[in-house]
Amino acid sequence: MDMDSTFFIYNSLSRRKEEFRPLDPPFVGVYVCGPTVYGDPHLGHARSAVTFDLLFRWLLASGFKVRYVRNITDVGHLVNDADEGEDKILKKARLEQLEPMEVAQYYTNRYHDMMRMMNVLPPSIEPHASGHIIEQIELVKEILKSGYAYESNGSVYFDVENYNRDHKYGKLSGRVLDELQTGTRDTEGQGDKRHAYDFALWKRASSEHIMRWPSPWSEGFPGWHLECSAMSTKYLGEHFDIHGGGMDLLFPHHECEIAQNTAAHGSDSARCWMHNNMITINGQKMGKSLGNSISLDEFFTGTHPLLTQAYRPTTIRFFILQAHYRSTLDFSNEALQAAEKGLERLMKGVAAIGKIKPSAASTVDVAEFDKAWRAAMNDDLNSSVAISVLFDWVRIINQLNDGQQQITAADLETLTESARTLVFDVLGLQDEAGNDRMELVGGLMGLILDIRSSAKANKDWPTSDKIRDALTALGIKVKDGREGSDWEFC
Amino acid sequence: MDMDSTFFIYNSLSRRKEEFRPLDPPFVGVYVCGPTVYGDPHLGHARSAVTFDLLFRWLLASGFKVRYVRNITDVGHLVNDADEGEDKILKKARLEQLEPMEVAQYYTNRYHDMMRMMNVLPPSIEPHASGHIIEQIELVKEILKSGYAYESNGSVYFDVENYNRDHKYGKLSGRVLDELQTGTRDTEGQGDKRHAYDFALWKRASSEHIMRWPSPWSEGFPGWHLECSAMSTKYLGEHFDIHGGGMDLLFPHHECEIAQNTAAHGSDSARCWMHNNMITINGQKMGKSLGNSISLDEFFTGTHPLLTQAYRPTTIRFFILQAHYRSTLDFSNEALQAAEKGLERLMKGVAAIGKIKPSAASTVDVAEFDKAWRAAMNDDLNSSVAISVLFDWVRIINQLNDGQQQITAADLETLTESARTLVFDVLGLQDEAGNDRMELVGGLMGLILDIRSSAKANKDWPTSDKIRDALTALGIKVKDGREGSDWEFC
Repeated sequence: MDMDSTFFIYNSLSRRKEEFRPLDPPFVGVYVCGPTVYGDPHLGHARSAVTFDLLFRWLLASGFKVRYVRNITDVGHLVNDADEGEDKILKKARLEQLEPMEVAQYYTNRYHDMMRMMNVLPPSIEPHASGHIIEQIELVKEILKSGYAYESNGSVYFDVENYNRDHKYGKLSGRVLDELQTGTRDTEGQGDKRHAYDFALWKRASSEHIMRWPSPWSEGFPGWHLECSAMSTKYLGEHFDIHGGGMDLLFPHHECEIAQNTAAHGSDSARCWMHNNMITINGQKMGKSLGNSISLDEFFTGTHPLLTQAYRPTTIRFFILQAHYRSTLDFSNEALQAAEKGLERLMKGVAAIGKIKPSAASTVDVAEFDKAWRAAMNDDLNSSVAISVLFDWVRIINQLNDGQQQITAADLETLTESARTLVFDVLGLQDEAGNDRMELVGGLMGLILDIRSSAKANKDWPTSDKIRDALTALGIKVKDGREGSDWEFC
Repeated sequence: MDMDSTFFIYNSLSRRKEEFRPLDPPFVGVYVCGPTVYGDPHLGHARSAVTFDLLFRWLLASGFKVRYVRNITDVGHLVNDADEGEDKILKKARLEQLEPMEVAQYYTNRYHDMMRMMNVLPPSIEPHASGHIIEQIELVKEILKSGYAYESNGSVYFDVENYNRDHKYGKLSGRVLDELQTGTRDTEGQGDKRHAYDFALWKRASSEHIMRWPSPWSEGFPGWHLECSAMSTKYLGEHFDIHGGGMDLLFPHHECEIAQNTAAHGSDSARCWMHNNMITINGQKMGKSLGNSISLDEFFTGTHPLLTQAYRPTTIRFFILQAHYRSTLDFSNEALQAAEKGLERLMKGVAAIGKIKPSAASTVDVAEFDKAWRAAMNDDLNSSVAISVLFDWVRIINQLNDGQQQITAADLETLTESARTLVFDVLGLQDEAGNDRMELVGGLMGLILDIRSSAKANKDWPTSDKIRDALTALGIKVKDGREGSDWEFC
């Protein structure tokens, strides 16, 4: 098999790159953990969304039929991920004096708006945790039946110790129970759990808890880890191809998902687990408490004190794609400004392909370009290398335009097609500054210069008719072009 | 109380205009029936969405705090509304060979895209029917407990006859049971129901039915009418202010909702029921079978055989708003072209306010303008009259610019503010052709004409510096303006 055309993905479970072989080709099932909708989307959300958008696009470009499921967490995600504390959305609702679902809806809409601006494709199915309570209750029943959970005071907890005896708990994160025991010695806040490392499958709601549903154990709500097990099984089956998410979800969220699925169905769900690395800000971890969490809206408008300017959504996207998804990525204004300049150069280079005049022979190897960037993408989605290949070719495109190199018409067509596939379909970049506006300004400026040179050369000026014709050619309708009267443009 | 500042709404239940008095001012709860997501949104969806967007905007502009709930029907809406036949979404899924939720997601996204293009504000909460199965099952239990429903072969049906004995069935539509009996004499397809006019609260799923949930009666799915009763109660309470929807939903959908709520809670939910009238196409009813159902996408791209051109989203919106929501509205190319021209004239008029030079005294009564359009809006959302008031004032604005009338600076400010509130906040019109583009073209054209007249008058031409300054004033950055060299714009 040609290594270059085989897709290799780094599997967090096996800790090595593995050849991607779908369970049921050409169909591919992908599940990715989406946002908890209690705050404005920030750079961390963008990195995860762009990473798995790249995966989605690459699978589509490779000819697979993909069902891409990305959830919305609108209930059950507690402030303290270790099962205690308040529901993030409820807390925000109380702060903002709104119905919790109004908060969830608002931030879901914000997330969608920002993702659209960044040209992140919508997933095939976007299930809400609150919309799958029945499925989660059914899953709790199965885990109870298997003996790996216990009921305690109206709540149901996963019995990690018992599970660990039969299956290895910690196979994804590499953590072992002894360590966890030491790490969570403090029994305060343990509540109804037998062990601090047990996690909630169902929580009994306190009297003031608004988001609650009936269940066989109590009026309550599902534990956070449960939703992804329930919804991935519902929409992709007990076994599917790829499960993705941010590195911060690897433990405990994904570890618990694996335990839940194994407890209920006898085996884990996803063959391959992918995790994108985190973003740091000027070398520091990003976090609300550190005051350095910059929302996407603040990036797009340049309104955060750490920002020296506004950045376009595509610049943020390009900045993310310039690094491999498993590398850390450090934000700084300098790095983003460099990305902005790089993107501009790249887009100009791609546009300049259109100006190349074909020759009888080629001095460049177009097939090499196509092969190189595809090989990079097949090597665990290495967009960083694919982009550097493209930069190399921007230089070659300039040489082609300068006449230093030649290309045949057929090769030119291949080059155009290959570059377009990479830039627009796979990387999902867009020239959002408005090609339209650029074209219009360019056209009108041409007209102005024509008028000027005509006036200069002939001591003459163009007639209204001539101007009108030129405007019409630019797609600007002119209603009334009589001399001396007002012009109307529409 | 000043009649002009009191909001009157036509209540379909009482069949007359009633003063709007919120149950718990300043809060207002509004529930509107949203789309069944199994096909591309068409003109009918647009009329309903724009009508209730106008209501939402007018309530907000009037100072109310509105919780606006608009649902997504993604399960249970059968092809034959009389409870038999296939689920619309399942049928489409089979046709397209997709998971039903993939179909629902696709058309939900399409609906959101189209609504955004038409500047329809997103509702405060957008609940999915499939996400509220528990709430629907609980409601069925309550109705069974009240004695107005019966179980039959795993399904549960609403017992219309029994209900009618205690409460009046048909109070919204004015239909009486005897008529219904005659109208549905045919017992074919009655299935497990006692009477043809009984309707399903829960349906047992046949073996091939994919969308199914466990319930006390069977694995199955909720009846279509149930979701709106369950979700309006969940998010707005048992009693709320306004329930809206298209006229085609009045019977049986809303009639059944009233029966369900009354059976479960002892009384109806909404104080006021609002229904927008239908759209006809060249005088004919719109329908897929008639081949005259034009999707919004087809309107925006001009790709339907019945269309002579493409129409902008704002033109469609304006066309809808030009008629009162309770009038029928007939689509034709001529009518839409007239709307397009009218909108253009109106937007130019509003823009021309900015050119008015204030005088020491006013010959126009600005307060009258503000009062007139607000009175129209308060009169059952009469956008048709509000728009005609605005057209009258476009004439006055032109007279003010021509010097035929005068206005003080204070009055000019009031006029500007009032017109903006009406046009942008309340009617939600937008100059999407791009104010930006218009401004740019206008500015560049001014520059061209300046150059021409300068050349004509002085037998001279402007210097590069002068052109650069003019471009800079238009916000166009010029990188290199040396004579003879290429100009770069960015």
